[in-house]
Amino acid sequence: MLSEAVRGGLREIVGAPHFQDSLEDRISYSYDATLYEALPGAVVYPGSVEEIAAILRLANEERFAVTPRGAGTGLSGGSVPLRGGVVMVLTRLNRLIEISTDDLYAVVEPGLITADFAAAVAKRNLLYPPDPASQAVSTMGGNVAENAGGLRGLKYGVTKHYVLALEVVTPEGEVLHTGATTVKCVTGYDLTQLMVGSEGTLGVATKIWCRLVPMPEHKESMLAVFADMDDAARSVAAIIRSGVIPATLEFLDHVTINAIEDFKKIGLPRQAEAILLVETDGRKSAARAEAETVVAILRENHAQSVRTAANEDERIELWQARRSALSSLARVRPTTILEDATVPRSRVPDMVRGVREIAARNRLTIGNFGHAGDGNLHPTVLTDARNKEEFARAEKATEEIFALALSLGGTLSGEHGIGVAKAPYLKNEVGEVGLKVMRAIKRALDPNNILNPGKMNLEEKG
Amino acid sequence: MLSEAVRGGLREIVGAPHFQDSLEDRISYSYDATLYEALPGAVVYPGSVEEIAAILRLANEERFAVTPRGAGTGLSGGSVPLRGGVVMVLTRLNRLIEISTDDLYAVVEPGLITADFAAAVAKRNLLYPPDPASQAVSTMGGNVAENAGGLRGLKYGVTKHYVLALEVVTPEGEVLHTGATTVKCVTGYDLTQLMVGSEGTLGVATKIWCRLVPMPEHKESMLAVFADMDDAARSVAAIIRSGVIPATLEFLDHVTINAIEDFKKIGLPRQAEAILLVETDGRKSAARAEAETVVAILRENHAQSVRTAANEDERIELWQARRSALSSLARVRPTTILEDATVPRSRVPDMVRGVREIAARNRLTIGNFGHAGDGNLHPTVLTDARNKEEFARAEKATEEIFALALSLGGTLSGEHGIGVAKAPYLKNEVGEVGLKVMRAIKRALDPNNILNPGKMNLEEKG
Repeated sequence: MLSEAVRGGLREIVGAPHFQDSLEDRISYSYDATLYEALPGAVVYPGSVEEIAAILRLANEERFAVTPRGAGTGLSGGSVPLRGGVVMVLTRLNRLIEISTDDLYAVVEPGLITADFAAAVAKRNLLYPPDPASQAVSTMGGNVAENAGGLRGLKYGVTKHYVLALEVVTPEGEVLHTGATTVKCVTGYDLTQLMVGSEGTLGVATKIWCRLVPMPEHKESMLAVFADMDDAARSVAAIIRSGVIPATLEFLDHVTINAIEDFKKIGLPRQAEAILLVETDGRKSAARAEAETVVAILRENHAQSVRTAANEDERIELWQARRSALSSLARVRPTTILEDATVPRSRVPDMVRGVREIAARNRLTIGNFGHAGDGNLHPTVLTDARNKEEFARAEKATEEIFALALSLGGTLSGEHGIGVAKAPYLKNEVGEVGLKVMRAIKRALDPNNILNPGKMNLEEKG
Repeated sequence: MLSEAVRGGLREIVGAPHFQDSLEDRISYSYDATLYEALPGAVVYPGSVEEIAAILRLANEERFAVTPRGAGTGLSGGSVPLRGGVVMVLTRLNRLIEISTDDLYAVVEPGLITADFAAAVAKRNLLYPPDPASQAVSTMGGNVAENAGGLRGLKYGVTKHYVLALEVVTPEGEVLHTGATTVKCVTGYDLTQLMVGSEGTLGVATKIWCRLVPMPEHKESMLAVFADMDDAARSVAAIIRSGVIPATLEFLDHVTINAIEDFKKIGLPRQAEAILLVETDGRKSAARAEAETVVAILRENHAQSVRTAANEDERIELWQARRSALSSLARVRPTTILEDATVPRSRVPDMVRGVREIAARNRLTIGNFGHAGDGNLHPTVLTDARNKEEFARAEKATEEIFALALSLGGTLSGEHGIGVAKAPYLKNEVGEVGLKVMRAIKRALDPNNILNPGKMNLEEKG
């Protein structure tokens, strides 16, 4: 619980309308998009960088935890206030401050919604490529904190590749400026990239300088159906080897295809073992030439059918399958555990096969879909948290999926982060030395363990 | 001086043939490509990660400095052993371990020469884009330590954008693995990017996982001559606004053009105020369409002449001007101070004008050339270090160039690093809080200040 003095201090900093400590409000900020929950002592909505700095200075004096948060769409428990204290909601800082069409960058505040930002720059014929599935709701600050990914990773990279510079409030309440608006900048340690993906444990981004690219002139979309997973996998490898890097290269497995047909009935063939959705973009002539190469490769590798979109309406139709994947899978059973283990592209078939074996061995339904192009799949365990015996099997399967990804030279998390969900497994990937170095950095920057404590296994000695 | 015990310990670790402490050998490793010098107590050439770890553990026990080094082509004094101790030369670790054509990455050791690596992947039709001017001599480890840039920054980014993962020996002699071979990886703090550009102060990279991209199918090169600097600047802005991102967009000023004509006589017009060299690449149809757009823009903006290369021979001819720039400038006077202050692209004309004023005010010749596309210019002060009065003016002009870049929203160093040369100015860019955070990280990872001490202003309290 927070003392009366602390609550008074917070109320004074942000103003009474922006301070809440009723049970109802605290419950509203006790969870994110995972199953994890923890009750904060209060919720504050700061309106400026000065208020954020003052909150953190007070937190260091009075030793309470501060968990920064955007829209709470995180998928690893990153914004759950595990050690109580204060949830600091950044949605009031939501301005789009500047778009530079000459220097190809924009300056935004952390509370700006990702899709709103992308739409605003699109009007200037510019592209902000990171497109996490939650972009209609998620905030730029949350995307930076978690280094959000999306569908364009293969060609365009992820959030971190579009963050040039930051204004950050440090855990001790000082204002730090990192990076530069130039692509080239080698002045000291890269604190920008240290902050991106640090899950709110090293600082609170209050301004974000984002790199933009010219909007591709043209897109070509293709959907291919395969009776054999290996043919789909061979197609992916052949596309990359041909020198084509598609903007998106998405995959749906048999379970996912059938879930979509159960709930959306969009006419996908239920017998199919795999669907690939490919999009090329760029200059019109280049996107078209690349699409022709892709279609030829899909056919050579025994695609049962290849549909191409002749116009934007048809493109939206093709994409409906991919867009319906998670929402359809989520309706199969009461509880959905969405994972994001990532492997080198060439190991995707091994990953898909391995996940199938894990599902069979644990008597579970696991759908699998995601970003085949960058090896970032979403094995989705469909279960019921109320059934303890089954849920234990689901958790075991999840652990086995993590181990499988690592054994294939992959990573625990491609785009969701460590947070609470994967904290116990972090050491399996980064090793003892890696964890030791991360803990040393956390201690150096946040000696009182104020910012988002309890995450990423940064606390314990073991 | 190193004690007999330390020298014996080092000799034992690396083997007698790989330990040197004669004055001649120590002098050979007392400098890099700058004017800075400091004599090490010994030079070691470790042959394995285990030997490197053992050297660093000994250094922590016996408290001597270790300065890692590749080919010594650095332009900021980064590998000068400022606090004596041991220079650790990494050129024996020079293997190209793996090229994955399916997963688009390669694994190299730090001593591999950059151009050799680029040539090896080119044979597989893959591109490693970073191309620092020193690439024929510089090593991959040095490029990673300094986050080397090059001519392709605008479209392709710099070294850090191509480092996926590292094996690093920490300052205390432990072996750390960072990152993953996948583009998407959000497991804990981004230690990979913290290491890249840390100038050998946080760790010694012993294996580097590099991202590769498909080799562009085709290139188109154009050289345009301008009587007016502003027309050249307007062309650059118009090219970017048209949605074309050239692979290279290089600039030569009047002083540079005349130096090239003095020493190389390749037929550039001596009256010209600016030359732009532009290269588009990609699919043949796209590179050509983009080249047409570029040529039209250059003509609209009053280029006096625009030459295009019809074949590879003509392309090499066009590039001769750019390739001769630094070597020609360096012949004008005995001492060359090559800077790399970088500004947002739209401020390049202000930077060029400002550098001219600085040259006039300080009665100096300053050539200016470089990467107009990414705002990374190379103001090159031509002077004589033996003439104290003139050299003092040269140093004053250099300081003024740094201040100018910062006042235009730029950065002290786009691609050379801080090292010794810019250490006194770092705080002007990153601020007191930035320096404090960098020092805290250095202390956390290198409590005994073993690795490359004295660089980047990380030592002092002030």
